[in-house]
Amino acid sequence: MVRAVVHAGRGQVRVEDVADPRLCSPTDAIVRVRRAAVCGTDLHVLAHPDQLPRGFVLGHEFVGEVVERGDQVREHALGDLVVGADYTACGRCWWCRRGDHWQCSDRRFFGTGTVFGPPLAGAQAELVRVPHADTVLVALPPGIDADAAVFLGDTAATGYAALRRAGTEPGETVAVLGGGPVGQVASLVAQAIGAGVVVVVEPVADRREIAAREGAVAASPDRARKVVDAATDGRGADVVVDAVGGERGLGLALDLVRRRGRVASVGVPSETIEVPAGRAFADELAFSFAIGDVMRDAEPLLALVRAGVLDPSVVATERVGLDGAVEAYRRTAERLTLKTLIRP
Amino acid sequence: MVRAVVHAGRGQVRVEDVADPRLCSPTDAIVRVRRAAVCGTDLHVLAHPDQLPRGFVLGHEFVGEVVERGDQVREHALGDLVVGADYTACGRCWWCRRGDHWQCSDRRFFGTGTVFGPPLAGAQAELVRVPHADTVLVALPPGIDADAAVFLGDTAATGYAALRRAGTEPGETVAVLGGGPVGQVASLVAQAIGAGVVVVVEPVADRREIAAREGAVAASPDRARKVVDAATDGRGADVVVDAVGGERGLGLALDLVRRRGRVASVGVPSETIEVPAGRAFADELAFSFAIGDVMRDAEPLLALVRAGVLDPSVVATERVGLDGAVEAYRRTAERLTLKTLIRP
Amino acid sequence: MVRAVVHAGRGQVRVEDVADPRLCSPTDAIVRVRRAAVCGTDLHVLAHPDQLPRGFVLGHEFVGEVVERGDQVREHALGDLVVGADYTACGRCWWCRRGDHWQCSDRRFFGTGTVFGPPLAGAQAELVRVPHADTVLVALPPGIDADAAVFLGDTAATGYAALRRAGTEPGETVAVLGGGPVGQVASLVAQAIGAGVVVVVEPVADRREIAAREGAVAASPDRARKVVDAATDGRGADVVVDAVGGERGLGLALDLVRRRGRVASVGVPSETIEVPAGRAFADELAFSFAIGDVMRDAEPLLALVRAGVLDPSVVATERVGLDGAVEAYRRTAERLTLKTLIRP
Amino acid sequence: MVRAVVHAGRGQVRVEDVADPRLCSPTDAIVRVRRAAVCGTDLHVLAHPDQLPRGFVLGHEFVGEVVERGDQVREHALGDLVVGADYTACGRCWWCRRGDHWQCSDRRFFGTGTVFGPPLAGAQAELVRVPHADTVLVALPPGIDADAAVFLGDTAATGYAALRRAGTEPGETVAVLGGGPVGQVASLVAQAIGAGVVVVVEPVADRREIAAREGAVAASPDRARKVVDAATDGRGADVVVDAVGGERGLGLALDLVRRRGRVASVGVPSETIEVPAGRAFADELAFSFAIGDVMRDAEPLLALVRAGVLDPSVVATERVGLDGAVEAYRRTAERLTLKTLIRP
Repeated sequence: MVRAVVHAGRGQVRVEDVADPRLCSPTDAIVRVRRAAVCGTDLHVLAHPDQLPRGFVLGHEFVGEVVERGDQVREHALGDLVVGADYTACGRCWWCRRGDHWQCSDRRFFGTGTVFGPPLAGAQAELVRVPHADTVLVALPPGIDADAAVFLGDTAATGYAALRRAGTEPGETVAVLGGGPVGQVASLVAQAIGAGVVVVVEPVADRREIAAREGAVAASPDRARKVVDAATDGRGADVVVDAVGGERGLGLALDLVRRRGRVASVGVPSETIEVPAGRAFADELAFSFAIGDVMRDAEPLLALVRAGVLDPSVVATERVGLDGAVEAYRRTAERLTLKTLIRP
Repeated sequence: MVRAVVHAGRGQVRVEDVADPRLCSPTDAIVRVRRAAVCGTDLHVLAHPDQLPRGFVLGHEFVGEVVERGDQVREHALGDLVVGADYTACGRCWWCRRGDHWQCSDRRFFGTGTVFGPPLAGAQAELVRVPHADTVLVALPPGIDADAAVFLGDTAATGYAALRRAGTEPGETVAVLGGGPVGQVASLVAQAIGAGVVVVVEPVADRREIAAREGAVAASPDRARKVVDAATDGRGADVVVDAVGGERGLGLALDLVRRRGRVASVGVPSETIEVPAGRAFADELAFSFAIGDVMRDAEPLLALVRAGVLDPSVVATERVGLDGAVEAYRRTAERLTLKTLIRP
Repeated sequence: MVRAVVHAGRGQVRVEDVADPRLCSPTDAIVRVRRAAVCGTDLHVLAHPDQLPRGFVLGHEFVGEVVERGDQVREHALGDLVVGADYTACGRCWWCRRGDHWQCSDRRFFGTGTVFGPPLAGAQAELVRVPHADTVLVALPPGIDADAAVFLGDTAATGYAALRRAGTEPGETVAVLGGGPVGQVASLVAQAIGAGVVVVVEPVADRREIAAREGAVAASPDRARKVVDAATDGRGADVVVDAVGGERGLGLALDLVRRRGRVASVGVPSETIEVPAGRAFADELAFSFAIGDVMRDAEPLLALVRAGVLDPSVVATERVGLDGAVEAYRRTAERLTLKTLIRP
Repeated sequence: MVRAVVHAGRGQVRVEDVADPRLCSPTDAIVRVRRAAVCGTDLHVLAHPDQLPRGFVLGHEFVGEVVERGDQVREHALGDLVVGADYTACGRCWWCRRGDHWQCSDRRFFGTGTVFGPPLAGAQAELVRVPHADTVLVALPPGIDADAAVFLGDTAATGYAALRRAGTEPGETVAVLGGGPVGQVASLVAQAIGAGVVVVVEPVADRREIAAREGAVAASPDRARKVVDAATDGRGADVVVDAVGGERGLGLALDLVRRRGRVASVGVPSETIEVPAGRAFADELAFSFAIGDVMRDAEPLLALVRAGVLDPSVVATERVGLDGAVEAYRRTAERLTLKTLIRP
């Protein structure tokens, strides 16, 4: 038996003993989790108890050590330190060969029940089973801090995917909507890859303070346009990363983006959004939706962390053992913490 | 006095004598029009008589000869053959220096009243005044057919802008929505710049025939997905160029585009469009809006025409003198012709 | 026993019975060869008999059918039609994950002895063993002609690699040095991916004729600059693909390339070349060396062939059975044929 | 009369009164120089006294204020603060429209006699005449420090040009050869635009110290490969910026660059260089030569400086008045200073 954070009814989690994960395929590995992070997505799936059986193990951000591996796992030896992608991919299909692992038909999202596809037990546990381990696990080179690496699997990969899909160029002004963990790390990534001014737009003062401390210009939503204008001679942001989503995120993005600018959305959006197409056409805007993919982007992300240029661990505002997970979920839900790291 | 096609009340045109255009600024030139094309946009602006005074000269696609020029025009000598962009730009501001002339604050769209900004008399006339002539006029190298060159100013530049903004790569499958002039020429441009299969989606059989004759695979809207699937092993089009616009264009684009595909819209869209954001997010789609810009893209467009790789003159299904313009507008409105060239 | 083309002493080949190739690793496959091509590289290695044991099976360009496979081959079923890359790669290392298979430490070049690394028996045979079959073999979609597909493994991949590494843009003028098979196919690829004028520079009239028939402008070396100038208003070629190599290739490239132009070399070069660095600096030139990689570029290459945009089979000027191989080598050496296809 | 630094015989300079520069064309401006920098190129041209008349005003890096302008200067008003490009360009020709101003036939390099084309008096003076002022002068937005801006015209533009031509991607390891001003600023630019580890290779300890203080890893030439290996798991640098030049620079670049890596040279090279083409081919290397162009790259460079991400003023190790120029030249020649700023 291993201890794990499990679903305990709508919005509730509990730490319980669950059965040891076992290899189900020769391409599986078992990873002893050294760090797992609590994510807004965990709260999101807890709100869909019909898609998440009671007792289901949560969590999709993790760093750990390979402790068992199937016969066909060739990339990772026992004892290797690895960061996991937050979802699986086969590594061989048309999509995977392009580096678009999210579209793989063998995608399973760790710890999220059936919300994003077939279920796969999560990583907020002492051990986690990782299918397609050669593809899903990324080896950590020596000298990478586990507290930073754990965010490469989802949070940092998400910001990176958005900024690259939007074609961010050196010196460009980037507005990041939302000062939650995704927004904060998107700001760090933007700075690391060559943006000029990065503006984090966030209503909560504490989060603005963090953004400012970490190199961004912070602005409340109502002052955001003024701040962006000051950096761009009134033109607006070259790139907007929308980590808010929905009509509210889009509205703010449209307030801030310059003509011919680009909006990349990473927030979970509403089902439909009204887009002012006349304005978008006249202003030649571009919109894209991006999902993080550390399997594709491990190389630059690891290199930036290793070089000391990017340190996503700054969003880890709390650290607990597995026993602290229940409280960590509560504090995450109440936005009292950015990211809590669990050390099982 | 010069003869010109002018607005004659809602939906009506007339050929009349109007005052000679005169240089108003040292950066102006006067061009004797050799070819002017009738465009769907002409019909669009005729539907807004409040924004288009009676007697206003129409037309924004033209090739001609420089016959007079202001003191500060340096790029074009008298007698030079030139193609005009369909709108003006100063050539010096922040936007123009980037090559984004549509966003120039000195933009005026020829022959469209106040629909797209301050009015500027059009080019369906014996003579046309061209502001910022150094920027707005593009010199034609020897050996370029005027019947092809006239489409570089708007129609071909539009297709090019869309395909490039969508990041079209060699071998990609491109679906073009709409077999009108813009769609037909977008198909030609896609083929010229390295697309693989190009599918033109068009309800009218005659237009499908032209598309097929000119190298595309033609499909009616209800068969389009099947045709795209055959070319892409069921994945969908890599790139969709939407020359239909509005909810209908978007709906069809969403039917055809593959996951992680890109939709570029060039049609005049509705004021707002409902976008299925949940789907767009899960499929990591990208949407962009693109406006043609021959001032930016003259170099590749001219090179492709000159090399014989691109011949947009195939959409010129009729040719008339100025006297034939009234009839040409009627036939354009009834979709009996793709493009009519006026030789004043 | 299978029949195969083997090394028979300096510059000589013979058709002999050799032992059946057998699976040596669970990632191997055995392919029944349907087409194998004779390549200039075959002649090159025959000139190094010390690096090529007598009896060694030659040939590295092939299309065939999978007839046996190791336990770990997952991408290709028995009976699948495939084209082989001309060298192997593991598919999993740092280089392979980037798509730079040539740099893989597990590279072996089919049928070339030890000239390019550890030896691996070639494909001019009834059967060939293919290591790392999941990576090295590319599945052919239905409707691809084997006579075209056979050139994707090396010849067409080479042209594609060069043109892409040189950053070829739509409408650009490309000069291809050498009208042998690589040059001819580079010309086809350039046309397929959106070049404007393509000039093939070749001293032999017959080869110029083929180039011209296949859409290029053909020029002898001494007239090349004039021809390029006519297409570029005297500026020179935007891109030069050097399929000649050595000082002679470089000299001609420098004659033809425009300032800020790009030269990509694919020919086997001399050990050292004198580069006029002062000129290269003042003219801001770029030089790159590119090796074909169908493992990386299968997607666009197959799409272009499938769409009918690219047909490299036009260089297959002769077709023989295995018995015709000796004669085919002779005619290749004497430049009496471009490419000979062997159908074992 | 104005005071200026002038050529006083081989290797010698003097501060003298020279005639006031005057407008020679309606596109000229006169700029009152606020900062001028001493550059290695100044020493280089002093070594060619036959190409540099005695009394010729030196200097090509400057920031200043527009104090007089021709009738056709439209971008810059009197009193505007500007940074000058180090050479002129017409702004209108085929090359200038592409943003390749160095290739403009109207290029003149300030203060270098006839070494790089027709002569144009330099900027180490109280006033300087600037031809094509609309193109050659770049307006400085408020809040840019003149001591940083002065380096945008040449030093920083050079590093930027090299890194971009080499296609530097986020996280890549960049080796910069030479810790002189160009190398130091290239290191800063590399860090600003998203490189991972930046290694400055420099024999002089003082210069290594500066590089290290400013965020690079510094290495002596003999330790460089070891340092690069540590950052790249033994593969070598993704990008090498060669600010040394000649056979020595190339040799070191070849020692450090990884397979498929890219070398961009900015140093003044020897007339010819022996390139080991066999190795370059097998390793698929790319070489390019890049010349700085602030007229093209002002936008990202200014944005990075304005955002506080890039501060090239750290290489300004000394500041003098015009009277200190003679001493400054001596100290520059003896490598006792990186960059000396003259405040006339």
